[in-house]
Amino acid sequence: MDAFFNPSGIALVGASAREGRSGYRILRNLVTGFEGAIYPVNPRSSEIGGLRCYPSVTEVPDPVDLAIVLVPAAAVPAVIRDCVKRGIKAAIIESGGFAESGPQGRALQAELVEIHRDSGIRIWGPNCMGLVDARRKHAFSFVMERIWDNGMMDGDVSLVVQSGFLAAGFLVDIMSHGELGIAKACSIGNKVDVDESDLLEYLIGDADTRAIGMYLESIGDGRRFIDLCCASRKPIVVIKGGKSEIGAKAAMSHTASMAGNGALVSDLLAQAGVVEASDFHQMMDMCQALAAVGEYGGSGGVGRRVAILTPSGGAGIVSTDFVDAVGLELAQLSGPCREKLESIYPSWMPVANPVDIWPAVELNGPGAYLSAFRALCEDPGVDAVLFHFLGLGMFGGSIAPLAEIASASGKVVFCWTIGTAEVVARVRKEAREYRIPLFRELSRAAECMAAVLKSAPPVTGSVGAEPAVMTPSEPVELASDLPAMLATGSLVLDEYDSKRVLACYGVPVVEERLVSSPEEAAEAVNELGSPIVLKGLAPGEVHKTERGLLRLDVSDEGQAKQHYVDLTGAMQGGGRVLAQKQLRGSAEFIAGMLRDDQFGAVLMFGLGGLMAELLEDRVFALASIDEEGALRMLARLKTQKLLDGFRGAQGVDRRALARILCGLARLAVENPRVREIDLNPLIICEGRPFAVDATIVIGEDC
Amino acid sequence: MDAFFNPSGIALVGASAREGRSGYRILRNLVTGFEGAIYPVNPRSSEIGGLRCYPSVTEVPDPVDLAIVLVPAAAVPAVIRDCVKRGIKAAIIESGGFAESGPQGRALQAELVEIHRDSGIRIWGPNCMGLVDARRKHAFSFVMERIWDNGMMDGDVSLVVQSGFLAAGFLVDIMSHGELGIAKACSIGNKVDVDESDLLEYLIGDADTRAIGMYLESIGDGRRFIDLCCASRKPIVVIKGGKSEIGAKAAMSHTASMAGNGALVSDLLAQAGVVEASDFHQMMDMCQALAAVGEYGGSGGVGRRVAILTPSGGAGIVSTDFVDAVGLELAQLSGPCREKLESIYPSWMPVANPVDIWPAVELNGPGAYLSAFRALCEDPGVDAVLFHFLGLGMFGGSIAPLAEIASASGKVVFCWTIGTAEVVARVRKEAREYRIPLFRELSRAAECMAAVLKSAPPVTGSVGAEPAVMTPSEPVELASDLPAMLATGSLVLDEYDSKRVLACYGVPVVEERLVSSPEEAAEAVNELGSPIVLKGLAPGEVHKTERGLLRLDVSDEGQAKQHYVDLTGAMQGGGRVLAQKQLRGSAEFIAGMLRDDQFGAVLMFGLGGLMAELLEDRVFALASIDEEGALRMLARLKTQKLLDGFRGAQGVDRRALARILCGLARLAVENPRVREIDLNPLIICEGRPFAVDATIVIGEDC
Repeated sequence: MDAFFNPSGIALVGASAREGRSGYRILRNLVTGFEGAIYPVNPRSSEIGGLRCYPSVTEVPDPVDLAIVLVPAAAVPAVIRDCVKRGIKAAIIESGGFAESGPQGRALQAELVEIHRDSGIRIWGPNCMGLVDARRKHAFSFVMERIWDNGMMDGDVSLVVQSGFLAAGFLVDIMSHGELGIAKACSIGNKVDVDESDLLEYLIGDADTRAIGMYLESIGDGRRFIDLCCASRKPIVVIKGGKSEIGAKAAMSHTASMAGNGALVSDLLAQAGVVEASDFHQMMDMCQALAAVGEYGGSGGVGRRVAILTPSGGAGIVSTDFVDAVGLELAQLSGPCREKLESIYPSWMPVANPVDIWPAVELNGPGAYLSAFRALCEDPGVDAVLFHFLGLGMFGGSIAPLAEIASASGKVVFCWTIGTAEVVARVRKEAREYRIPLFRELSRAAECMAAVLKSAPPVTGSVGAEPAVMTPSEPVELASDLPAMLATGSLVLDEYDSKRVLACYGVPVVEERLVSSPEEAAEAVNELGSPIVLKGLAPGEVHKTERGLLRLDVSDEGQAKQHYVDLTGAMQGGGRVLAQKQLRGSAEFIAGMLRDDQFGAVLMFGLGGLMAELLEDRVFALASIDEEGALRMLARLKTQKLLDGFRGAQGVDRRALARILCGLARLAVENPRVREIDLNPLIICEGRPFAVDATIVIGEDC
Repeated sequence: MDAFFNPSGIALVGASAREGRSGYRILRNLVTGFEGAIYPVNPRSSEIGGLRCYPSVTEVPDPVDLAIVLVPAAAVPAVIRDCVKRGIKAAIIESGGFAESGPQGRALQAELVEIHRDSGIRIWGPNCMGLVDARRKHAFSFVMERIWDNGMMDGDVSLVVQSGFLAAGFLVDIMSHGELGIAKACSIGNKVDVDESDLLEYLIGDADTRAIGMYLESIGDGRRFIDLCCASRKPIVVIKGGKSEIGAKAAMSHTASMAGNGALVSDLLAQAGVVEASDFHQMMDMCQALAAVGEYGGSGGVGRRVAILTPSGGAGIVSTDFVDAVGLELAQLSGPCREKLESIYPSWMPVANPVDIWPAVELNGPGAYLSAFRALCEDPGVDAVLFHFLGLGMFGGSIAPLAEIASASGKVVFCWTIGTAEVVARVRKEAREYRIPLFRELSRAAECMAAVLKSAPPVTGSVGAEPAVMTPSEPVELASDLPAMLATGSLVLDEYDSKRVLACYGVPVVEERLVSSPEEAAEAVNELGSPIVLKGLAPGEVHKTERGLLRLDVSDEGQAKQHYVDLTGAMQGGGRVLAQKQLRGSAEFIAGMLRDDQFGAVLMFGLGGLMAELLEDRVFALASIDEEGALRMLARLKTQKLLDGFRGAQGVDRRALARILCGLARLAVENPRVREIDLNPLIICEGRPFAVDATIVIGEDC
């Protein structure tokens, strides 16, 4: 990758002397900032802008390790072949007209994939804006002429943006509005070779980058991407444009059908400590806040307790609502801090958080604002301070006196400001210098505070990442007929066999037995205890209720015999009959496993029964999980109050649920042909979970 | 109110010749913009800024009908008394130091209330910034010097802002950033007299105002405020700072305890067609969008079907997510529109919404963008168009060609733009001229589109308002003992009496009877049908389960007798025993009525049972509601899928639920001492609702 970011010499194929052309803009940008060798390539010129121009990339002299290609799509494959011939290691193809524009373009793109595979040349693009390195003033991009005159600021946020046209607009917007300081901005386009994971890996190791923002429409190797995120100590913010396609495939299990609509990707990103953004400027603001605060854990981790300092009771109230809405807490002020505030407050005013400081300022002057701010910064019960600066003359419209206090204390501090355009511009400049995240909207301030404080680990450890370690345990012993089934080509195990497998992996299942005559069915009523359930297990059939193969409340021998006869009749002799103790549960859940094309084996846990689909409350995690990871997965369930014995209902043994999830994970790892697992429902009976129905789907090729 | 907005002459009490002083700033502002008579009042000067200065307001000559007061708090009551003496009709008190600042200030404020009551002088403030009228260039405010030189734009949004300090910061911000065009900006402060309803009423009638934005921390007369909102054809956007206090009162019923945390106010505002904002700039953006689109219903109402036109597939995808998240729909494009798009698209590209126009532009030039936009504007299946303008050279970085098409079509159109600062500034100016709401964030664009499209009535009628009409019906006949109970001082009716009352108002109740001996309890098993429920009704006790006064599943005579003995024992002879048919319902709800200090009688409906408190899904509406209004209230329930027979469960007769709510409303209107009503649970049995338990609370003084 270094050939892209630190080339010794660049061949610009498609250089142009005509103003307004992309090939002209990029040459100007190169000449302005790049200090290595620059070789324009254009067969129709011998010299452009004072530089010697070469008819073909094959004739370019040393040193050259990067080609930037801007010729019409049809000519690109030949140019890349020439690059290979010339020994150029890397090429950025900025031309469009490939997979994004119809069948002809797709064929050209396939040709590029082939050249890359055969030769090993690294290809970035096509259909992209290349890269900008604001520190080195490298603009390997046609995106804007005189990019450095347009408000572009260097900084420590690096960006990776997919989507050709949007990338252009987005980067131009950022570069010219002077709101975000950039380290490196990368537009990746159609991803013939270099993809989001390659760039993420590079940027994680890049000394100039403190936070990474990404707009992605697809993630190629999802597992590699998640592993990189887990290992990163730099904060990563992602906007996912476009949804997971998994729901579209014919899904046998509830688990697989629930994985659609992006929930799976969101959960896996959260599991890896990634902050998810939904909008472009929001992503920028989050990156800037995260970069300002820097690597987590430097001073032993950041908590979620926020103090609010405001000259306006009203803004304090609105802030409190937002702090609550994003899942942060209002700090309980500690004794010394309260005492300090009491000493500057008027006597009629009680101390509280938000700290409404105006009456104290009226009594004691602006120094009261500084004293209160210092007390909050020094309060060990406060993890972060949000101060409001209304810029109405206090401190001469400058936050410098406050910023000095914040710097000295090392506390994480955020600022919300409104005021005249002049004051806001000055405060913005000061905030950048002092690395204080600054916001003009309270809602955005709260979102970014949550991004900083919630993605930080509570005490130590890597950034929010779950350890990807399986608990080692004894080898699983399966009954002799099961291994062959689990290795078969394509099969849906029936409920009985599914549960026999699951039981071996430690999943508690309801008490049950096969019955093979009306008499055995009758006996089962006595042996399992009335009432029982009788189920017809027809081969390949997972919808028993809809097929009329489920008989509940079977409470005497006569009923049992009759149902047996009916069920075997309904299955036309093709299945078998299962007798089961009928459990009355206090709550109903669903658990499962599916294999995702991008991310591999993934676990699912959710609310069951009628509420399941109404609330869509389900969580996903990579199947490489241990018991603690499974507990954290459960803790992400929205309705998790139900697990704790909500409103008089009995609680659930969370560790028992976590062990079930670990069992599913192990089953998935040890049996690569198991494609889907469904425990539906998982019923809670006296606080313990039991799989009441279950399905294992074996796939052709996982 | 006209004396505030159109005074013939103004006495400025506290005028100052010293630069930097508030009394200097406001005088400069008056001299700059106000064309009527201006009389500085200050006993220490005879002339200020070339104007004759008067020692006291009593000596000011005609014409004078408004005083602006800026003297220390302690001197204010005397000044206002002088105003009364001089016959001045109205005063704006901008000084602080009243109820917001301790007991001494509270006493001064009480004095002002008294003067207002005794004399009838209208008082605006104290502790406020007064008002700014940008059309007339009236700045009756000390808030900024040379306000008109600072980017203040006149426009058609009027603002009302409570909270002294915040109002200042907020108004200064708006006035100097040039982002929002203002008609009138009013800071109301401590509301001794003039309040949010007075100003709302004035602004609804104000010809310069097209949309009204309000930041309110309290609503004095809630019912008047809601009635004004219902009657307004101008869009109103409200931020509520601070929460309803109702939850804090000792609440007997679930209904009353659920009304806390602001949900009640939010629902009543929604019912009145008010758009609720949560943040300050969001409120401005919503107001601007609503003002641009103007009064609803001009062309027969606006629907929710949105078409998205974009040169970036990626931005189209992100927009789709936001459109979905705010509850709008993607339009199905109609035949002629599809044909037009097909004629300009490359052959390989299918027509869809979002309309990804870039491949067509590459094929046919920028004219393709205009053609597509025109086709969408002319499509009767499209209610609004969101177009993306990435400002990368198309149309010379101007939206004028698109805006012309939009104007000609009369379609509601929104624009999202990113690009260089220069392009964004130009587009912003054009958007204002053409009245096209413009956004730099897609999320904000979607929020504002929802504010415009969702608050509009579907076809005709007033702005989203529910008709405040009760269905007339036959007089209710109550059993002879009930009227006295309903008019009593303070009483909790027991379940049996509560249901007798409710049944008279048309609420279906479960079949039940009082039993007064073990034998009668046994008989009830046979007469009501096994199983039955036995309940001990202890006087004033509403928590039967917790008190052990509820016996479920009573299925034989022996059990019934024993429970009767136990229940009467537990109540120590003080209550009575109720036998009830045990219903097995398919769903459980809760309905009720409470009286709110600000809003009067309010109805509540929500999900019942375990899920009720977990999901907090409940809706409120003013009790002046008819059946259609009640149906609309039900339609706001988040989990309303449950009403429609979700996932095989039986649906609910919505009209039967609506009639119950109307019955509660009538009960509240006809019995002013009824303070709270609880139907909990309301069980759905074969699609019909039955009140299974109920409580009516009679209050001392409602």
